[in-house]
Amino acid sequence: MNLLFKTSSLKATLWQSELQRLVPDLVIRKWPDFGDPGEIDLALVWRPPHGLLKTLPKLKLIMSLGAGVDHLFEDPELPRVPVMRLVDPRMIGEMTEYVTLAVLRLHRLDLTYLEQQRERRWAEHIQPVAAERRVGVLGLGQYGSDAAFRLKSLGFDVAGWSRSPKNLPGIACYAGESGLAAMLARTEILVCLLPLTPETEGILGAGLFAALPRGAMIVNVGRGRHLVEVDLLAALESGQLGGAVLDVFREEPLPEAHPFWRHPHILVTPHVAAATNPLTCAPLIAEAIGCIRHGRPVANLVDPERQY
Amino acid sequence: MNLLFKTSSLKATLWQSELQRLVPDLVIRKWPDFGDPGEIDLALVWRPPHGLLKTLPKLKLIMSLGAGVDHLFEDPELPRVPVMRLVDPRMIGEMTEYVTLAVLRLHRLDLTYLEQQRERRWAEHIQPVAAERRVGVLGLGQYGSDAAFRLKSLGFDVAGWSRSPKNLPGIACYAGESGLAAMLARTEILVCLLPLTPETEGILGAGLFAALPRGAMIVNVGRGRHLVEVDLLAALESGQLGGAVLDVFREEPLPEAHPFWRHPHILVTPHVAAATNPLTCAPLIAEAIGCIRHGRPVANLVDPERQY
Repeated sequence: MNLLFKTSSLKATLWQSELQRLVPDLVIRKWPDFGDPGEIDLALVWRPPHGLLKTLPKLKLIMSLGAGVDHLFEDPELPRVPVMRLVDPRMIGEMTEYVTLAVLRLHRLDLTYLEQQRERRWAEHIQPVAAERRVGVLGLGQYGSDAAFRLKSLGFDVAGWSRSPKNLPGIACYAGESGLAAMLARTEILVCLLPLTPETEGILGAGLFAALPRGAMIVNVGRGRHLVEVDLLAALESGQLGGAVLDVFREEPLPEAHPFWRHPHILVTPHVAAATNPLTCAPLIAEAIGCIRHGRPVANLVDPERQY
Repeated sequence: MNLLFKTSSLKATLWQSELQRLVPDLVIRKWPDFGDPGEIDLALVWRPPHGLLKTLPKLKLIMSLGAGVDHLFEDPELPRVPVMRLVDPRMIGEMTEYVTLAVLRLHRLDLTYLEQQRERRWAEHIQPVAAERRVGVLGLGQYGSDAAFRLKSLGFDVAGWSRSPKNLPGIACYAGESGLAAMLARTEILVCLLPLTPETEGILGAGLFAALPRGAMIVNVGRGRHLVEVDLLAALESGQLGGAVLDVFREEPLPEAHPFWRHPHILVTPHVAAATNPLTCAPLIAEAIGCIRHGRPVANLVDPERQY
């Protein structure tokens, strides 16, 4: 079998050696010089150029080199081939770590104390405990539900929202459009863990911010295009929002001139919340290749209508 | 009964109303104008001036307005009266929150990413998960053990050290002088939750730093005098230590000219890890007053030899 491989991972070499170890007869063809398109059976890719995948007539499976598949569905010429996403417990654990850190720092007034440190100012502020802090999680898939349960275990008062109704023990679950308004009204710290689809693009915008209590804070670990950047700047300026922790951006790397870098109420990290790891993800790829070979159903296929 | 009350709390008024509500016949006498020293039965104090408590001939119980009692034993003329510390689950929970936040931010390379944000620089770094990160907790009393269990529940590889041997499930427990060296040798992030006593003063110094692996990071939420400040600056300069999160200082408020404020590898917070809360602590004081009245043993008395 011939695999088209395109990655921007820091660990590309380890990816190749792990895949080769697990599937010795796999022929790995690295983009861009991957030879005859007519020989490619499988694609393991991150942000493929639009139109690339439709040039592969024998393609049987497209595997996203990440948890999200928006980078595939963005391609207007995406062929009608099954699309698989990576569901790796290690990545979910990394994401939950990052979300825990982000929520704790907003909860513990880190933006205020960082500003005071810059100004060499010593001032104590009254601090609620976790049980007195209402956190809301947008998206209750594998990532969102894991983060919600962890935040609950730390004592936070946690609610969650999803498009279709869910029932998670200990979490106040809301669903659908009417549920969204209700959840936002009770949320002091909002975490976005939604998939990026035409329906969720721009969801973190002026309308949503206005539905939060004044001074609420947000964490975006979904995708940059969930956020309307000018609306965030306006909401921070007016005081409707109190702060933001952002790991994803419309343009990555975030351009040097972008106002987020120097904003006193925005914390920027360079898309590091959860990284694919070859040691834990290569076995998932090998398993999927085995399924294709033996005609068994592949796990974690994406619904092309929902795009997640 | 007459209570001498001295506090620097933001919530002094709430303290008084709560105490009065719970013990209606208590006469609260606020320092410094507390009337006849001969009439004082009880002291509820934070940092009393040296020599003050020995001027109270009828004093039956000294209650620390905090978890630590070092501010009392510093007084060379402290009378031989029982000393009680506050053991409040809410304060322990607040401390564990702070420690969790501090450890997560060092684990997730927050000092690096904050520096990159200041420089508007986008660069991803390889990130271990919690299970690959070795954390050590100095002090396994009520605070240290609660923090150790929480860090363990987040997946960290946790060890702890105490003067006398302890056995905590899931935590690698070390004790005594030889145990200290062994624990330090395996610790990447060290948290100090020791009581301040003549034996632990200055424990966070050059000798201890040299016993840690190169690049280790520290969190001090004990007392400022646990830390030898010049040794920390030297260890950060040489690269022996990679960073520090500090909530307590030898001089508080931290003086404006102090080098910690502007150090790129030190995070400063103004002694806010855990604050006494009148709503949860006043009942502990009321309980102790009841015990004194009825000749019952008071809980959480300090051993004057160990000073904790």
